Amino acid sequence: MEKEFIKPMDITDIESRIKQRAAQIESELRGYLDVTDDDYGILYDAMRYSLLAGGKRLRPFLALEFARLAATSRGLDPDAAEASALAYASAIEMIHTYSLIHDDLPCMDDDDLRRGKPTNHKVFGEANALLAGDALLTLAFEVAASNKLASPETNCRAVVLLSTAAGANGMVGGQVLDLIGESSRLGFDTLERLQSKKTGELIRASSLLGCYAGGADEGLIAAAERYSMGLGRAFQVLDDILDVVGDTALLGKPIGSDAASDKTTFLTFMTPNEAYAYADRLTRDAVSALEDYDGADVLCELAIYLSKRNK
Amino acid sequence: MEKEFIKPMDITDIESRIKQRAAQIESELRGYLDVTDDDYGILYDAMRYSLLAGGKRLRPFLALEFARLAATSRGLDPDAAEASALAYASAIEMIHTYSLIHDDLPCMDDDDLRRGKPTNHKVFGEANALLAGDALLTLAFEVAASNKLASPETNCRAVVLLSTAAGANGMVGGQVLDLIGESSRLGFDTLERLQSKKTGELIRASSLLGCYAGGADEGLIAAAERYSMGLGRAFQVLDDILDVVGDTALLGKPIGSDAASDKTTFLTFMTPNEAYAYADRLTRDAVSALEDYDGADVLCELAIYLSKRNK
Repeated sequence: MEKEFIKPMDITDIESRIKQRAAQIESELRGYLDVTDDDYGILYDAMRYSLLAGGKRLRPFLALEFARLAATSRGLDPDAAEASALAYASAIEMIHTYSLIHDDLPCMDDDDLRRGKPTNHKVFGEANALLAGDALLTLAFEVAASNKLASPETNCRAVVLLSTAAGANGMVGGQVLDLIGESSRLGFDTLERLQSKKTGELIRASSLLGCYAGGADEGLIAAAERYSMGLGRAFQVLDDILDVVGDTALLGKPIGSDAASDKTTFLTFMTPNEAYAYADRLTRDAVSALEDYDGADVLCELAIYLSKRNK
Repeated sequence: MEKEFIKPMDITDIESRIKQRAAQIESELRGYLDVTDDDYGILYDAMRYSLLAGGKRLRPFLALEFARLAATSRGLDPDAAEASALAYASAIEMIHTYSLIHDDLPCMDDDDLRRGKPTNHKVFGEANALLAGDALLTLAFEVAASNKLASPETNCRAVVLLSTAAGANGMVGGQVLDLIGESSRLGFDTLERLQSKKTGELIRASSLLGCYAGGADEGLIAAAERYSMGLGRAFQVLDDILDVVGDTALLGKPIGSDAASDKTTFLTFMTPNEAYAYADRLTRDAVSALEDYDGADVLCELAIYLSKRNK
């Protein structure tokens, strides 16, 4: 029987799955910031403001779904695997959120809007935004290392993966390349390397954290890496396309900001139509990485859904 | 026989021990940043600039000496315990350094000088300083979680301790209280709470990390907590005294900055002489916490030495 999951998907199903997952994660994240100490009122307010600001929660989605897939592929209980991945999923969303807060600061991108709301420092001031980011990054490691539903070995492995992906050779390194890129025109290869560090590493880590929690074998880990690379790149290409052809109201931020700042993007090298075709190729590669796995439908649908998104 | 370690110490011995330890840690830290990738040249330069800027390396000193003391108290090999504490000692210095970089930023204390050198953002720009701090914080957790000379259980415990001490309810929380204190006069209790969070928690964590690495029992852990509280508070009181009566050349920063900014310090509540007496009381309490332990001489000498420092 031919695999079914590369044929057109039922958008309604994957959309509702994303929404369910986002609500699940939002509730989990809220629990970590459920603090009423008046001393830190403003710090926790600033942390909550950005961490609980909604969004697709793509990274936690990947962690939870890969945990299920890993368990299923080994005949284990997917619910237990998902439960043990939940702390990692929360940790990675904290790291993603900290990076957005710091990235929006005046000394970085100096952005006023994020997801249709004023950025953190616009509401709480620069110092509190800086510290809220620092606190979220720090909390992420506490949450991962104290995960009661995984072994200390797996928790250590998760902390090392998170820090490698987020640190100087991962996301922060990508930010530095990005800063350098603002003052000089980048080549296509450099742009891909920048993006793979700035956003790709954390997406890859999300999938692998799920694999760790679910006890994936080397084969699935390799497949998860390939899937994540395709999905992550396609995601970024779409971001660049939407900055040109998107809808400000849907995106929650002004379009045309890349062109206005003369930033190197994928559209520096191709037309929007070519970029769509490129994203489609990357997405197909992501999907084909998982074609040997039963139960990978949700992840395949996700990749296709993201490549067709308009926000 | 009466315990000897609270009688006057040989300053030369403890000074040379501090210098040896500082050189040992400097070399260890250098190894973690031994990266030649041109892509990240400026990021690693910025990380190295602050992490390898010298200083007493008080926190690593505590971690290494408590590891020795813990092993000795259980009849185990102090060298092995010290070796297994080295990664934690490095991690805590990375966290301390990140906090200084972020604290000096224009949106925080806006300081131009640190240890007699221009602050990180003065040399590398605000964006790179922000990212160098982020990268050091992130690297700290990688280093602690991947410590090959301790068990995964101990590494997880170390990561949780580091993140709790550094996070929203520890150091970052202290920074927030500090920001609030800049615009309002604090009471004595609030000042002590602020300081115990802003600097005390990380000092406490340093000692406890050594205890964990050396397999300390509950008794020594409790003694280490009491010692650290006394030493940490005395250290801060001395800092406030030196800001008034210190020597700019020795301190590497201008004196009188607290008074100029109308900041609440211990000297808001007492004269310099009263503050010296208070620091002395705190130091004696720190020393007495370890009086039941053979081999605690170095730690006792350290506390006394720090209470008599002029920089």
